[in-house]
Amino acid sequence: MIRFDSDYLEGAHPRVLRALADTNAVQTPGYGEDEYCERARELIRSLCGTPEAAVHFLVGGTQANRTVIVAALRPHQGVVAADSGHIAVHETGAIESAGHKVLTIPGAEGKLSAAAVDALCRSHFADGAFEHMVQPGMVYISQPTEIGTVYTRRELEELYAVCRKWSLPLYIDGARLGCALVSEERWTLPELAALCDVFTIGGTKLGALFGEAVVITSPALQKDFRYLIKQNGGMLAKGRLLGVQFCAALRDGLYWRIARQETALALRLRDAVRAKGWSFLTDSPTNQQFPVLPADTVNALRKDFGFSTWGDMGGGMVCVRFCTSWATTVEQVDALIRAIPEKV
Amino acid sequence: MIRFDSDYLEGAHPRVLRALADTNAVQTPGYGEDEYCERARELIRSLCGTPEAAVHFLVGGTQANRTVIVAALRPHQGVVAADSGHIAVHETGAIESAGHKVLTIPGAEGKLSAAAVDALCRSHFADGAFEHMVQPGMVYISQPTEIGTVYTRRELEELYAVCRKWSLPLYIDGARLGCALVSEERWTLPELAALCDVFTIGGTKLGALFGEAVVITSPALQKDFRYLIKQNGGMLAKGRLLGVQFCAALRDGLYWRIARQETALALRLRDAVRAKGWSFLTDSPTNQQFPVLPADTVNALRKDFGFSTWGDMGGGMVCVRFCTSWATTVEQVDALIRAIPEKV
Amino acid sequence: MIRFDSDYLEGAHPRVLRALADTNAVQTPGYGEDEYCERARELIRSLCGTPEAAVHFLVGGTQANRTVIVAALRPHQGVVAADSGHIAVHETGAIESAGHKVLTIPGAEGKLSAAAVDALCRSHFADGAFEHMVQPGMVYISQPTEIGTVYTRRELEELYAVCRKWSLPLYIDGARLGCALVSEERWTLPELAALCDVFTIGGTKLGALFGEAVVITSPALQKDFRYLIKQNGGMLAKGRLLGVQFCAALRDGLYWRIARQETALALRLRDAVRAKGWSFLTDSPTNQQFPVLPADTVNALRKDFGFSTWGDMGGGMVCVRFCTSWATTVEQVDALIRAIPEKV
Amino acid sequence: MIRFDSDYLEGAHPRVLRALADTNAVQTPGYGEDEYCERARELIRSLCGTPEAAVHFLVGGTQANRTVIVAALRPHQGVVAADSGHIAVHETGAIESAGHKVLTIPGAEGKLSAAAVDALCRSHFADGAFEHMVQPGMVYISQPTEIGTVYTRRELEELYAVCRKWSLPLYIDGARLGCALVSEERWTLPELAALCDVFTIGGTKLGALFGEAVVITSPALQKDFRYLIKQNGGMLAKGRLLGVQFCAALRDGLYWRIARQETALALRLRDAVRAKGWSFLTDSPTNQQFPVLPADTVNALRKDFGFSTWGDMGGGMVCVRFCTSWATTVEQVDALIRAIPEKV
Repeated sequence: MIRFDSDYLEGAHPRVLRALADTNAVQTPGYGEDEYCERARELIRSLCGTPEAAVHFLVGGTQANRTVIVAALRPHQGVVAADSGHIAVHETGAIESAGHKVLTIPGAEGKLSAAAVDALCRSHFADGAFEHMVQPGMVYISQPTEIGTVYTRRELEELYAVCRKWSLPLYIDGARLGCALVSEERWTLPELAALCDVFTIGGTKLGALFGEAVVITSPALQKDFRYLIKQNGGMLAKGRLLGVQFCAALRDGLYWRIARQETALALRLRDAVRAKGWSFLTDSPTNQQFPVLPADTVNALRKDFGFSTWGDMGGGMVCVRFCTSWATTVEQVDALIRAIPEKV
Repeated sequence: MIRFDSDYLEGAHPRVLRALADTNAVQTPGYGEDEYCERARELIRSLCGTPEAAVHFLVGGTQANRTVIVAALRPHQGVVAADSGHIAVHETGAIESAGHKVLTIPGAEGKLSAAAVDALCRSHFADGAFEHMVQPGMVYISQPTEIGTVYTRRELEELYAVCRKWSLPLYIDGARLGCALVSEERWTLPELAALCDVFTIGGTKLGALFGEAVVITSPALQKDFRYLIKQNGGMLAKGRLLGVQFCAALRDGLYWRIARQETALALRLRDAVRAKGWSFLTDSPTNQQFPVLPADTVNALRKDFGFSTWGDMGGGMVCVRFCTSWATTVEQVDALIRAIPEKV
Repeated sequence: MIRFDSDYLEGAHPRVLRALADTNAVQTPGYGEDEYCERARELIRSLCGTPEAAVHFLVGGTQANRTVIVAALRPHQGVVAADSGHIAVHETGAIESAGHKVLTIPGAEGKLSAAAVDALCRSHFADGAFEHMVQPGMVYISQPTEIGTVYTRRELEELYAVCRKWSLPLYIDGARLGCALVSEERWTLPELAALCDVFTIGGTKLGALFGEAVVITSPALQKDFRYLIKQNGGMLAKGRLLGVQFCAALRDGLYWRIARQETALALRLRDAVRAKGWSFLTDSPTNQQFPVLPADTVNALRKDFGFSTWGDMGGGMVCVRFCTSWATTVEQVDALIRAIPEKV
Repeated sequence: MIRFDSDYLEGAHPRVLRALADTNAVQTPGYGEDEYCERARELIRSLCGTPEAAVHFLVGGTQANRTVIVAALRPHQGVVAADSGHIAVHETGAIESAGHKVLTIPGAEGKLSAAAVDALCRSHFADGAFEHMVQPGMVYISQPTEIGTVYTRRELEELYAVCRKWSLPLYIDGARLGCALVSEERWTLPELAALCDVFTIGGTKLGALFGEAVVITSPALQKDFRYLIKQNGGMLAKGRLLGVQFCAALRDGLYWRIARQETALALRLRDAVRAKGWSFLTDSPTNQQFPVLPADTVNALRKDFGFSTWGDMGGGMVCVRFCTSWATTVEQVDALIRAIPEKV
């Protein structure tokens, strides 16, 4: 069984694991107040060109999303997201459980458009009886999106301009941020940091055992953030584990190398499947690929490969998701390619 | 600087770390649905003599406490705890943030007595206007307690009898459970499992990088628990990390050896400090010791030792906390003993 | 200015007001534990043919919806509603603020279809990774709907069959229930009570100063409901005000007479506007009418009439809402009819 | 049966009721956006000498407390209150249900002292690991308190100075505010308004059918308050009922006359019972009296009188509560006095 189910099927990149072993016996304070976390914070501030940013490390993405969002919203406010957004679909209502509605907008290719957010805000703030409806209080996007697409510079600039127009902080969920950085759009960390108020740099899906770095550039969102981490169950006792891993991943470009490698393998798969005649849910330049295949083919593939079903497309066709990770090999990808038949 | 601040100042016990390294490259499903977690579940069920128990693995204690408590309570119910209980004091209102009051009872030596819980329930359920007050819905204790004491068999039997009388599930927070198991009271896992409805076996403070096993013996509390883990941010993507660690820690008695070793060092410290004439906040048979020392002495110790202040006892005396861990050495303890002066 | 903005622009029907005056000096216990509330409960149980139902009185609809829904759901569950449902749109996230997602389904004419609810449940409960998504835990509908339509017997029977199939309690928000009772579908209270688990009989919009009666036929939902009323701010100190009003409104058929009168006036308006050539958003047999008129006409009408804008229909056309109430007169309706021009 | 159970056993003062009848047929907009509410707001601003204050009307006290508190706090903050505070004891966890801990301080005679609040804040903000504990975010007091005592000028000045020192808004729950205004301490509305950030003027217990006016002098707490009212179920559809009642009660000194009358009757009771030799829980200058009587006497009184038991004082003595209201007569009070025996 070769698995493409997700990008967290293996442990950590060997260099990250080694860093954990090398520091295992050192005594440090708990809760992220150690020197490794401090070094990782400095490294991230430096890489992002944001010397004043607050940087925190959390174990997982749902924790990070929930903590950032509760930090930003008052009780009557909701967070605007694409209807395919992770917080809207796959976090078991973690945001609602914290008291806030996710205000969904039908997403085009998984993205929120500036125009759609502007229309929502105009509609809300222009309506006299607006206090009967949830007030937009933050905008959430994923970069790359949940379906593998990447916001272009122009898209993000326009979206952030609308956010500033309505005084809405913009939050970028970067669970797979590395794949946006190495995509053909070639985002840099300072560029991204300048086009939002808070974002995450995902470690779990890019070589760490676990870990999301939350980078808060907006001073208003920085206040008392550690209280919120603790309250939301995200304060790791042995916090240095996060600092050690981010130091290892972000030094010497390892994070980008991992992203480039897993992306290259995903594109190899994409190009081969496309050459066989199959179409895709989206044109993804990242490590997630969503081909649309006949149900029979999908069932046949399950004997030897692990992957997830994304949706029934009708007409006997099924959309599936293949993910690559830091550990994926070219042999694994080629085995999958060979197993997918040509379209007749 | 030698640190006794807490029991999570170092990484993992070498055997646990090795297990993570040995399994690092294996592909498994995510979210705890892998074979390592399954083996760890079986091992725990077997060790506890509870073949029907549901076992889940979470990263940290606040997550575990919150998830268990929200699983048990309806909105108008609260959880009864000693006023020194971790959920009442040191979790930044995580339980209230999930909507529930912590109904505190002044604790004697950190413990809840059967009589006090019975009195609270009688008072609530006997009062005709009871719907104006929060209804007791669960009882929470820590074993050992936050101040190092251990419930005796008789205390726990009486408390659980009261809980059943009022139909309140009893939850035992076992963040340092190993230290209760090896204390002079010599608790066994099956005995503990039979005297509550749900309990945790703490890994973070007993040799793991992180991890708490939640063991749910009550069928009523088992339903849909994984939804609640996910919603509360506790579902680890690479869930197998938890299974691998618990397998390593619980096999061949390692967990008990670690507990015995850290307890023995703590008692060595206790006996030496007591011999020097100092008294203690509690008579702790576990890895946490709370001597009461002069403020001057405490300040002098800070130059070479890390530890936490527990409280001002008045009269120039301060209560401090020293913790030992799997990594503490006899040399470290003896250095601390030497640094503490005799009482004159 | 003649107002058709809503059905709560005046005070109470004179008979209801007189009942309040007549009982004003009587001393009773507070919080709904008085004899008037008890009589009103008995009357409602008798009118609904549900001798075992629990009946509670709350001041307003948002309170009632929130309290019923939190009584039914566990934290990981959401409530299924049409996307035009009041709880989804016009309650400022009161349900989310209590921790629960509203799982919306695009509504046809404001209604939830049995097929759509069934499909949602099949999709959720069939998917292996379902704990990543909010679990359907209750179904909410309004009868009549927010846009004036009325569920037919067949629609409601099918919907309730699906609810029972998936073990989901069905909740009917009857803020304007009287208008469904007197509609051409001629619902009776016992029929409605038999096709759901909990429903409300709205007083505010049918002659009372305020008040919603919550009728809970499902034993599982009855437990500890008064705690939830109190916690959600819905326990009126002088609770007898609610009992007195419901006694007055439900005795001798007043409630139905009010409903018939306001419906007749709304249909008089509907038929006249239709005769002038205008179309409507929905074919409403109730006291709310949603004609689609030219923006110019709408603006001109605003000089003499109060009403709300429902939505921009494009092409210079606007949908507006006209409501009648217990106090509306035929003269007021005829003035409005005269002011609306014929379509050319 | 003559009832002294509470101050909400009857309906409204006849002048208030008449105002409701007189305005019953008038059409107004809903949700408190009518001219009566506007007039009542102006009247309150004028009486309080706070031309910039925001004034809102809610139906009940739990609603008002919850809405004010959620408006003030961020998620990691709690509200400081005496352990006898209404929000801490008798609101079924409404504050916790909104996510916030009530940080209780043992109250002396039902009051919070400046020194105790200062000590709590020093302890929290001085401790380096403070993010593990709930942060004080607001201070709540009741004036008069739940046990009938009244803060003196000096007590309130000192308390408010401490609140400003720690940047904590001070909230005064004035459910029975009138009784403080007419007590020997002779508070005026402008004086009270100047010593807090937000307070309520209770109507329910002083002659209205229902209603609490929330007066927000702090600009920071005013923002978007109507959203929070709606979300918390406190926005009354026929909002003008609140405006009409407050206009009637606050015009021509009626509110003060009611307070004086019910207080005079309570003091008549107090003095007579004291003359018979009985002691009291507190020295209350207000409409609530808490005598401590033999259990036998209490049981005997129950045949003819309604009242509530406040607590078992030991030694066969029981503390009970007698309340007077706008409707209490001297004959009722004298009947009660006659029924209480002399102490032997």
